[in-house]
Amino acid sequence: MIIGIDLGGTKILTSLADPEGRIISIVRIDTQAKLGPEKVIGNIINSISLAAKQAKIPLSRISKIGIGAPGPILGQAIVVSPPNLPGWQNVNIKSILQRELKKKIYVENDANAAAFGEFSFGAGKGFKNLVYITLSTGIGGGIIIDGKVYTGSIGTAGEIGHMVIDPDGPKCGCGNRGCLESLAAGPAIAKMAGQKNALEAELAARRGNKKAKNAIEKAAKYIGIGIANLNNILNPDIFVIGGGVSNMGRLLLDPVKHWAKQYSMDASRKSLIIVPAKLKNNAGVMGAIAICMRVIPE
Amino acid sequence: MIIGIDLGGTKILTSLADPEGRIISIVRIDTQAKLGPEKVIGNIINSISLAAKQAKIPLSRISKIGIGAPGPILGQAIVVSPPNLPGWQNVNIKSILQRELKKKIYVENDANAAAFGEFSFGAGKGFKNLVYITLSTGIGGGIIIDGKVYTGSIGTAGEIGHMVIDPDGPKCGCGNRGCLESLAAGPAIAKMAGQKNALEAELAARRGNKKAKNAIEKAAKYIGIGIANLNNILNPDIFVIGGGVSNMGRLLLDPVKHWAKQYSMDASRKSLIIVPAKLKNNAGVMGAIAICMRVIPE
Repeated sequence: MIIGIDLGGTKILTSLADPEGRIISIVRIDTQAKLGPEKVIGNIINSISLAAKQAKIPLSRISKIGIGAPGPILGQAIVVSPPNLPGWQNVNIKSILQRELKKKIYVENDANAAAFGEFSFGAGKGFKNLVYITLSTGIGGGIIIDGKVYTGSIGTAGEIGHMVIDPDGPKCGCGNRGCLESLAAGPAIAKMAGQKNALEAELAARRGNKKAKNAIEKAAKYIGIGIANLNNILNPDIFVIGGGVSNMGRLLLDPVKHWAKQYSMDASRKSLIIVPAKLKNNAGVMGAIAICMRVIPE
Repeated sequence: MIIGIDLGGTKILTSLADPEGRIISIVRIDTQAKLGPEKVIGNIINSISLAAKQAKIPLSRISKIGIGAPGPILGQAIVVSPPNLPGWQNVNIKSILQRELKKKIYVENDANAAAFGEFSFGAGKGFKNLVYITLSTGIGGGIIIDGKVYTGSIGTAGEIGHMVIDPDGPKCGCGNRGCLESLAAGPAIAKMAGQKNALEAELAARRGNKKAKNAIEKAAKYIGIGIANLNNILNPDIFVIGGGVSNMGRLLLDPVKHWAKQYSMDASRKSLIIVPAKLKNNAGVMGAIAICMRVIPE
């Protein structure tokens, strides 16, 4: 039996599955991130016990645990210092859990895990080269090349939200200016729309509010340019778009597709496919399960 | 024995090498691109005979021919319609040469071939993930992932010159606005400097001409942003910078490095390595030889 975990800043989603990836149980508990790494790691261990109990499977029958955690992740093991997990500074979550649980552990960046989930079970099934983009409070990404998560030299690849698209653009949380995230993530849409958040902006746009409509179209243009850049650079088989902001559906995705085509080169425009994510909130946990199945050796 | 060919808009560079990649002869003839594909293909065949003759090797001892040609290239075979080869419309150069020469043929995009050359014999030797950038009349690139040329879904990956960095920037030859190429290739530098070409701009800058200096610094900033974007997306082991404009040396590359660091995220900044190309004008032909050695099966 295998365990997939999606470690988030507010929730831990833990699922027990059989070796073919069929989910037997799934539990969702609070991360309690503010209480620090020790407490969070205790909660992770607890969630595994709960998932096993719910499935009526003894812990001894679990052999592998895949984890998606806020990135960057070094060496499939170390959580560097994610803003939504305060107090985490180069925590080697792999070796801690290995010591405590005596199981095979593999830790992947959460966006990479979600990308691998969509690739293995979702909208990207059957493709070889895939770019997954998550539109949320931030903009993240995961790259699948030749059926494998591509993490780069030290594991930081896929940070597509920090692609600079307008050097004179707004200040980004990362310290630079004009990153895609600063131009088109949820908070940027809310600000341009003069609304509390992206969901309010969406509702206002659907009611016909011009400012909110323009804000979403502007964000869509930037996201489209970002996708076109990725298409010109990587020419993947498919782009899969997930994350809370993507729940706007065609209101956002239609103009995104328009601009992504517009800004792609002739040759790569023809092969451009952009689809919404299928697994939604379960992409990360399904990706962690897929990592157990396909990445962690027996 | 193997043959590597770098097919350019003005010159065909053809080299005969032994199976270990040691060059035995090298010939350089005019492409005569204006006379159309048939004439150019005749010249390619001619250049092979000349290289063989110079090396005193009978044609029968040649088993493989690798070719770098202006991209995009579809299916390692078809030259689509490069601007510097007028009259070429989806020419299947592989099947034509296979029919004429009865050898194993493999055609790769010229920037990809140069990337593979630097990876196999040049500044990128010993690394696994590499991005090669050629700064010239245009800006092109080649991506090596896990020791292999990455060409994407239909073979158009690596078009990094058409990454949009400033959507309100100058018009690009591709039809869009603010592509890296339109902001920082040779003609853009010349225009900003008020000089005839990039070389004149360099000379003026070295003489202390303020406008020319500013032009080179501005181009360097855009190139640096482009590299930072690629670093955040791909986090490669190394960036190798080639092409005629890169011959400016540190005058260009020092500010490029500065801005590439500045615009990279914290985590990927640390691993950023940018080096000048080593093989210069021979990168393409050496890459074509490396393709014979490592890609074309026996």
